[in-house]
Amino acid sequence: MTPSLQTEIRVRYAETDAMAVAHHANYPIWFEVGRSDLMRSLGLPYTEVEAQGFFFMLSKLEVSYRAAARYDELLTLHTSIGAVQSRAVMFEYVLRRGETLIAFGSTHHVNTDKNYRVARIPDEVMRLLRGE
Amino acid sequence: MTPSLQTEIRVRYAETDAMAVAHHANYPIWFEVGRSDLMRSLGLPYTEVEAQGFFFMLSKLEVSYRAAARYDELLTLHTSIGAVQSRAVMFEYVLRRGETLIAFGSTHHVNTDKNYRVARIPDEVMRLLRGE
Amino acid sequence: MTPSLQTEIRVRYAETDAMAVAHHANYPIWFEVGRSDLMRSLGLPYTEVEAQGFFFMLSKLEVSYRAAARYDELLTLHTSIGAVQSRAVMFEYVLRRGETLIAFGSTHHVNTDKNYRVARIPDEVMRLLRGE
Amino acid sequence: MTPSLQTEIRVRYAETDAMAVAHHANYPIWFEVGRSDLMRSLGLPYTEVEAQGFFFMLSKLEVSYRAAARYDELLTLHTSIGAVQSRAVMFEYVLRRGETLIAFGSTHHVNTDKNYRVARIPDEVMRLLRGE
Repeated sequence: MTPSLQTEIRVRYAETDAMAVAHHANYPIWFEVGRSDLMRSLGLPYTEVEAQGFFFMLSKLEVSYRAAARYDELLTLHTSIGAVQSRAVMFEYVLRRGETLIAFGSTHHVNTDKNYRVARIPDEVMRLLRGE
Repeated sequence: MTPSLQTEIRVRYAETDAMAVAHHANYPIWFEVGRSDLMRSLGLPYTEVEAQGFFFMLSKLEVSYRAAARYDELLTLHTSIGAVQSRAVMFEYVLRRGETLIAFGSTHHVNTDKNYRVARIPDEVMRLLRGE
Repeated sequence: MTPSLQTEIRVRYAETDAMAVAHHANYPIWFEVGRSDLMRSLGLPYTEVEAQGFFFMLSKLEVSYRAAARYDELLTLHTSIGAVQSRAVMFEYVLRRGETLIAFGSTHHVNTDKNYRVARIPDEVMRLLRGE
Repeated sequence: MTPSLQTEIRVRYAETDAMAVAHHANYPIWFEVGRSDLMRSLGLPYTEVEAQGFFFMLSKLEVSYRAAARYDELLTLHTSIGAVQSRAVMFEYVLRRGETLIAFGSTHHVNTDKNYRVARIPDEVMRLLRGE
């Protein structure tokens, strides 16, 4: 089964904008927090991926916004691994406040080496990402 | 012809991340700068839209990343209006450093009134967005 | 005794910069998180202060940086109320990673009403801030 | 005479907060923009400082806030070099909207080598910082 994780996100005052809602550019930052938490929970912190000389370079970001989030609200972010290929990995995100859907989205990443050239994801990393 | 504008974006040090490239969450912020500049150039600053009691609520964001941008680089952002409907407007963005494509993307916005209910875009605003 | 609280801060990737350390402009944002957590722990969430028609407008910020913080590190922020006057309040912050001092600082706030005019802090709020 | 420079800062929507004013954590980011512009105008872009193996590590930040700035406003930032010592440099900042003082502040930097150890500022850099 594909790995996934729940992360709690508390909306910071600095993340709000003049409409008194969380500004949309914070959502990819929260997604990244979910991704970091998921990787850490797999026993593969992203710091470890970088230490091995690899980067999950973002190639595509999609976010759909459904309802606003406000200062100090506690949101639940559900992060999962959507697809893993030999050189790429996709993460999926669903953000809720209680039962209310706030947003959902995805990020596509290409695996690169230290010189930012596309590279195969190491077998051990691959197995963890696939939940094997 | 559909309105469009070029904006220069200088990459800030605060916008870089540990890979020494501009962090991806800044791109939607730059897109918003381009959108603001385009609206202002149409004689319709977004402050005016809000003063009239309307908001262009973001419903969808897409960004495709093609090459990295680094600190202090001067980028050129081309912002255009992709489609205008009675209650929605789409903006499109292309970001380059010289001839190099850095990223492209789009934002979909739903027009709402002060209470954040979907509303018709006023005729005068509609005409400006359509470049009439 | 003056109210205080510990908050855990996990450094986000988006918060790092090209030196691979947390960028200094994030520290006031973290301080604000600590302030929010402290207010909530007093039974006086800052949303409540605003709902009563008051704002703690920032008038002064000071941060001293002693050691770098890096991606994914878990920091401990100690927030306390430094001084409370009839129209102003000061918060103090100490940020550590384990025993290592990362930074310390303070924020001075002036209490204002909805029209951003300086105003007396309500007695009930005053008592909570003073830990009475 | 001590080097200085004026930079125009246009307030971004993303920089506003729920009070509909520019959030205070953006001011150090703007100061950094002014610092970058000043260095570039001296013929010593900060990229060059880093390329020579040095960093101006921030050791202290002070900001005093006097009036609010709002979305789309065009501000003028005056950046100057306050003091230069063999191993440290201080920058000073004044931010205005027209004649209105918005904020002022300073940043203290310690010069370090690639390993983040305190180091003498190279003579050539010193001369430029001193406006000689």
